[in-house]
Amino acid sequence: MHPHPANTEAHFTGSAVVRDVIIGMSDGLTVPFALAAGLAGVVTSSFLVLVAGLAEIVAGSIAMGLGGYLAARSDQEHYHAELAREEREIQAVPELETQEVREVLAGYGLRDEPLENAVGAITADHRRWLDFMMRNELNLEPPDPRRARNSAATIGFSYIAGGILPLAPYAFKVPVMTALLWSAVLTLVALLVFGAVKGRFAGVSMAKAALQTALVGSLAASAAYFLARLVNGLV
Amino acid sequence: MHPHPANTEAHFTGSAVVRDVIIGMSDGLTVPFALAAGLAGVVTSSFLVLVAGLAEIVAGSIAMGLGGYLAARSDQEHYHAELAREEREIQAVPELETQEVREVLAGYGLRDEPLENAVGAITADHRRWLDFMMRNELNLEPPDPRRARNSAATIGFSYIAGGILPLAPYAFKVPVMTALLWSAVLTLVALLVFGAVKGRFAGVSMAKAALQTALVGSLAASAAYFLARLVNGLV
Repeated sequence: MHPHPANTEAHFTGSAVVRDVIIGMSDGLTVPFALAAGLAGVVTSSFLVLVAGLAEIVAGSIAMGLGGYLAARSDQEHYHAELAREEREIQAVPELETQEVREVLAGYGLRDEPLENAVGAITADHRRWLDFMMRNELNLEPPDPRRARNSAATIGFSYIAGGILPLAPYAFKVPVMTALLWSAVLTLVALLVFGAVKGRFAGVSMAKAALQTALVGSLAASAAYFLARLVNGLV
Repeated sequence: MHPHPANTEAHFTGSAVVRDVIIGMSDGLTVPFALAAGLAGVVTSSFLVLVAGLAEIVAGSIAMGLGGYLAARSDQEHYHAELAREEREIQAVPELETQEVREVLAGYGLRDEPLENAVGAITADHRRWLDFMMRNELNLEPPDPRRARNSAATIGFSYIAGGILPLAPYAFKVPVMTALLWSAVLTLVALLVFGAVKGRFAGVSMAKAALQTALVGSLAASAAYFLARLVNGLV
């Protein structure tokens, strides 16, 4: 509840990791499952479904993990570029930047002398002036420098963890439709549990989040299954 | 440059759409390409690669599009839940919430009378008081209510647009390795162009962003190709 920098940081890092696990595992549980379901509709070899699913997990975890790394790096570069620009503007056109502080504070209801006193206090210190402009004009918080690497690893491994489960049944020597059935049951249970946990972290209804998450997975898998059968039937 | 609500909104919506296109197209250009490359290493039928790729595009676009929808909806619910909580706290423990406004402003360098006057001005109006706490204590901006639906559509269609290109060569009656070669060339060019555009929007070096994006795609495809061959060789 206190705007103390250390607390904000801890809170930010915690929720960023949870967010990364959710990003990786959402797609990891859904896409390899749906792809495998789609292929199971057109091939008779469980082994081929397994190979395709594993290729997808590798491709997806690298694309999402490295994508997360580059996105976080790009956020950092964006923040520092904006910070440098704002710093130059404070040096070059201090009256204009002072006026912007005044407008923000006027928006919060300050008028006349209290307004001028507050503007004076904030613009008296360059570091605070910058921080105030970054938060209140540009809505940017200082990014965590370790975030890029952690984000990549968390998203990538969550994708792999999510993707292995739906593929496991295809590794057994059973008919491909039996494997599909087991894959669907396992994934549905996993999506319900994962959705509930996700809802809890987001502070929304767990039951609703569980059903929504399971629905997305089922829709994706059904669409992939019917499209694969349709395309296959066309030839 | 002005913190006027209408401007902030327009800026926010614009960059949110760009962000969604980038999210969808990054993965759309990378994952179906990499999956197809992986399968091309172990099957001789271009058609099977095409079916698997299309199944992946359908699954991926639904998972990412609906995932984006639910994430945006969850952001909105989170914002409104926090807003309601903050509102209850202002009613229940106004002294505590006034003290929090004081701490934020003290962090910006206000002291003594100017500080008390500013605290008085902000806490005189409940709406402003709430807005100030949301931005400066919780770092939350009001979400755009149309965002969830737009986000879903933008991410989903960008994924499809990105994924169709790498698969196109497999639709021709050519040997699977010829299709793979064409797919790699087309995708590499597309990733370089897309990376450069992405870099431009993020305000970072276009050449660097182009090379990074192409590298992620190449790594994902190579890993999928070698894993598929490895697993296939084991049986």
